[in-house]
Amino acid sequence: MKKISIGPRTLLYPHPDLIIGTYGPGDRPDAMAAAWGGICSSDPPSVAISVQRGRQTYENLFKHREFTISIPSVDHVKEADYFGIASGRDTDKFADTGLTPIKADHVNAPYVGEFPAVLECRLLQTVDIGVHTQFIGEILDVKVSESVLGPDGKPDIKKIRPFAYDSMRREYYGFGDVIEKAFSAGLEFRR
Amino acid sequence: MKKISIGPRTLLYPHPDLIIGTYGPGDRPDAMAAAWGGICSSDPPSVAISVQRGRQTYENLFKHREFTISIPSVDHVKEADYFGIASGRDTDKFADTGLTPIKADHVNAPYVGEFPAVLECRLLQTVDIGVHTQFIGEILDVKVSESVLGPDGKPDIKKIRPFAYDSMRREYYGFGDVIEKAFSAGLEFRR
Repeated sequence: MKKISIGPRTLLYPHPDLIIGTYGPGDRPDAMAAAWGGICSSDPPSVAISVQRGRQTYENLFKHREFTISIPSVDHVKEADYFGIASGRDTDKFADTGLTPIKADHVNAPYVGEFPAVLECRLLQTVDIGVHTQFIGEILDVKVSESVLGPDGKPDIKKIRPFAYDSMRREYYGFGDVIEKAFSAGLEFRR
Repeated sequence: MKKISIGPRTLLYPHPDLIIGTYGPGDRPDAMAAAWGGICSSDPPSVAISVQRGRQTYENLFKHREFTISIPSVDHVKEADYFGIASGRDTDKFADTGLTPIKADHVNAPYVGEFPAVLECRLLQTVDIGVHTQFIGEILDVKVSESVLGPDGKPDIKKIRPFAYDSMRREYYGFGDVIEKAFSAGLEFRR
C-alpha cells in the first residue's frame, strides 16, 4: 500500500486508442490515433477527444465540424499505430495501410471500414486545455460490424477484441475475460 | 465488414473505471465510480471526468474544487462497483467496503489507499454537456504503490492489473498481454 510519488503525468489505465476520421485538403480521407479521450455525456450521447494544434486533423475538425471515431481491434494494431505516427499532411494513411475509407451516413467524414465499430459525430464545442484542444462531439449514430454481434444482437467484446494504450511504457495491450457484472458485483457491501 | 446501425449510444472500447475521491458534508471521505472520462491534455497533464447533477460528488467537486482519481485493480472490482452503486449522501462507502481513505498530499481530497495508482487533481474548469458536467482537472501529482513498479522503476501494468467497463453489456473485463510497442509497430507502413 506504500505509495511512491512519480510527479504530474498522464497516467491512466486503460487509455483507449481512438481513430479520428476526417476529410483533409482536397477531401482526402484522413485518420489520426488519439488516446486522450472518452465518453463525456450520456444524453445527448457525446464523446470528447483531444488533438494538438498543428495536427492536420485539428484543421480538418475545425473546417468540417464532423468526424468519426473508429475503434480498432487487435487485428489492426499496427495500422492503428501508423495512424498515430504519420501525418495526413505528408501522406495518404489509408493508401499506405491498405485500409478502406468509407463515407459515414450521418456526417461528412470517413471511417475505417475494416474496424469493428464506429461512432459518427458532430462537433458541439471545443475547449482549450493547455497544449491540447478538446473536441466534444455528439454521437449521431454507432455502427458495428455484423460479425461482432452476439446471439442477442449486442456487440460482443470477445469478437470486437479491442486493445488499450499504456502511456507509461508506450505499449499496446490486449483485453481479457469478463470478470464481473457491473451495478451488481458490489451489492454485497450494501448495508 | 458489413456494418449494422445501432443508433446513438455511448459505445467505446475500452471505458476506464475511475474512482473519484472527494470530501463530502462534514468532511466525510466520499468516492464515486465514473466511466465517462480520460486524459484531456499532455501539458499541463489534465484529466476530464463527467458527473451528473444530483450526485453527491457533483456538490463536493464544486465545493472543494479538488479531487483524486484512484485506479482500481481487478482485486477490488467489487468495491469499485459499489462506489458506482451507493451514494455518499446515504452511507460511508469507505466504511462499507473496508477500504482506507487517505488524504492526498497536494489537494484536499481522499484517495483509496488499497488501489495501485492515484492522480491528485485541481479543478481547472467545468463544461456542461447535456445531462453531465465535465470536470477538467490538472494532475498535480501521480502516486503508485511501490509494489506495482517494475525493475526499471516504471509502473508495470501486469502488476497494476486494471480493468475496463463495457457499457453495452454492463460488465467489467480484464486485460491481457502487451501486444505491440507504440509509435513503432506501425513503422512498416511508412513509405
